[in-house]
Amino acid sequence: MNARALEQRVFNFSAGPATIPLSVLEEVRDELLCYPGAGASVMEISHRSQVFTEIAADAESTLRELLAVPDDYSVLFLQGGSALQFSMVPANLLRGSGKVADYLVTGSWSKKAIAEARKEGDVISTFDGKADNYCSLPPRESLMTSEDAAYLYYCSNETIQGVQFNSEPDCPDSVPLVCDASSDFLSRRLDIAKYGILYACAQKNAGPAGVTVVVIRKDLLERGDTSLPGYLNYQNHAQADSMWNTPPTFAVYMLGKIAHWLKEQVGGLQEIEIVNERKSSLLYNAIDGSDGFYCGHAAADCRSKMNVTFNLPNEELQSKFIAEAAAKHLDSLKGHRSVGGIRASIYNAMPMEGVESLATFMEDFAAKNR
Amino acid sequence: MNARALEQRVFNFSAGPATIPLSVLEEVRDELLCYPGAGASVMEISHRSQVFTEIAADAESTLRELLAVPDDYSVLFLQGGSALQFSMVPANLLRGSGKVADYLVTGSWSKKAIAEARKEGDVISTFDGKADNYCSLPPRESLMTSEDAAYLYYCSNETIQGVQFNSEPDCPDSVPLVCDASSDFLSRRLDIAKYGILYACAQKNAGPAGVTVVVIRKDLLERGDTSLPGYLNYQNHAQADSMWNTPPTFAVYMLGKIAHWLKEQVGGLQEIEIVNERKSSLLYNAIDGSDGFYCGHAAADCRSKMNVTFNLPNEELQSKFIAEAAAKHLDSLKGHRSVGGIRASIYNAMPMEGVESLATFMEDFAAKNR
Repeated sequence: MNARALEQRVFNFSAGPATIPLSVLEEVRDELLCYPGAGASVMEISHRSQVFTEIAADAESTLRELLAVPDDYSVLFLQGGSALQFSMVPANLLRGSGKVADYLVTGSWSKKAIAEARKEGDVISTFDGKADNYCSLPPRESLMTSEDAAYLYYCSNETIQGVQFNSEPDCPDSVPLVCDASSDFLSRRLDIAKYGILYACAQKNAGPAGVTVVVIRKDLLERGDTSLPGYLNYQNHAQADSMWNTPPTFAVYMLGKIAHWLKEQVGGLQEIEIVNERKSSLLYNAIDGSDGFYCGHAAADCRSKMNVTFNLPNEELQSKFIAEAAAKHLDSLKGHRSVGGIRASIYNAMPMEGVESLATFMEDFAAKNR
Repeated sequence: MNARALEQRVFNFSAGPATIPLSVLEEVRDELLCYPGAGASVMEISHRSQVFTEIAADAESTLRELLAVPDDYSVLFLQGGSALQFSMVPANLLRGSGKVADYLVTGSWSKKAIAEARKEGDVISTFDGKADNYCSLPPRESLMTSEDAAYLYYCSNETIQGVQFNSEPDCPDSVPLVCDASSDFLSRRLDIAKYGILYACAQKNAGPAGVTVVVIRKDLLERGDTSLPGYLNYQNHAQADSMWNTPPTFAVYMLGKIAHWLKEQVGGLQEIEIVNERKSSLLYNAIDGSDGFYCGHAAADCRSKMNVTFNLPNEELQSKFIAEAAAKHLDSLKGHRSVGGIRASIYNAMPMEGVESLATFMEDFAAKNR
């Protein structure tokens, strides 16, 4: 049955929830009825049991090691996805501050984030890419964040538009930089010390849907007022080592497994960064080498290494592309309903072989349908 | 390896996360690498894919069938556990209403709930069991909920104290009855029409930690103001069929499996109610037949059928009890750190055999250590 299951697996280009390393899935399957030493599935044991607290502590320390998280940062495992972070960030850092928060609106996710922030206080979008349909990012020199802004918020990778920041936007030292890194978390090295808060839902590079990692500089924990709904106050979670309430234990366990895979099998963030560069180049080369048959959505200088978005000459060819790709086990390539076209999400766990197959398919398809 | 894994499994009396039916775990294991027809693990596919939307719709309809949920109720799958519901209920039904919410404080969980509600508006505890250390529940005739209360809130089963309501408290028709049913959800039949909101985190009877089921009467969806943090507004989730943001897909999938187990293998809520009555009687009989060696925490008329709490004559015997039970594969019997003693959580998935073993062990232990 297992050989059969493997045979049936496709290359899954879903934007999230997304591909998980096969070796991790195999380990999880093998431990599913009985986690070693627990006498039960990891899903069945108390979050306060020694076995589980060790699993959670190990997940945290492995993430800390991968990202070189400094000691003055807390790492939290929360629920509610990025959607809840859209509210938690301004609820903790903006509400009642008398300050203004700066937002870079570079696509669908930062647009949702600023809408939630407006409920909590004064907000300005110091950049909004609407005019060119969110295909480009603000030039570094154009950003002028005020030194007394509550924080500067941006989304490092917009999955729907396929645009990605190559590096952090400039931000005064006095202003916490807040980053929604949901879709490129763990895909490259970062200097955590540049951030006030960096958060990511797990379902792209880090695990199944249902857990969100928040890396937060400890001095910012005190900003949340005690009048906040308890779950929304970062301080509560930090003080309780993410066990203020029952954490999503299975998702935390998987996050730890994936962190270990990244550390031990891939070799860390420096290695995965090289792999991700190589994988995305294969697809962008296929676009650029197609004599305009494929038209990339993102401007060349901010192409995402995680979500490669492009259009074909017409709807009919797009549907044909998706259908023929699926027949070759290249799955979930349809672009997001809000922008259409094709989107190939190639997160950490997408094997090189899957990207090579897609690049070859793109060349063949262009040659036959040009 | 599977035979070995089975051999290693203990009877797990954890209060939550808790035992899951073995046949469900086996199905999940067998599908872990490749969900039938998906070409990927259920964790890896888009929540908007046809395969997953069918899984979520099936989980909802199976729950609706089990609980006979009327059409004028929405069933939501949310994140954040009961802890977030402690805030969402008053944020939606109390904030800005100019009304007062009534709370029955019957143990640790309703105490936490009222603390969160106080942040959102005026609240009164029309019962507080503190004086007798939360071992009893309010007599039905003592409850006098005002006809213009924002809602009447109670927790149907307090896991820590082991007290459970046998039926709903009296509540005027004009007042929505709100119930935290986290720890006895799906353990017995309920008349959903009596409730305004009934919610339950999954990790007792319904699944792994990370998903919370909210059954809410549709007219109450309109109470939440648009100024609420988006995730906290029930209306957003209801309008989007619980896909306002990415749901915890794996936990929803497991919830569906457990609902099917309950429906097909157990025979529904009427059947499980009988089994739960029988299981809890075995342990309460062991307590009552021990000539005072075991001292139950809960008053006889409100003993929980889910969490059986009791004390031994002294700390030393308690530690000995826990250690000797563990040696017989009867695991996680230590009471909650806030009340001490012994707690045997015997949710739906705890086999009769496990309860019989514990009852026999209790009798033997009492005989030897009296």
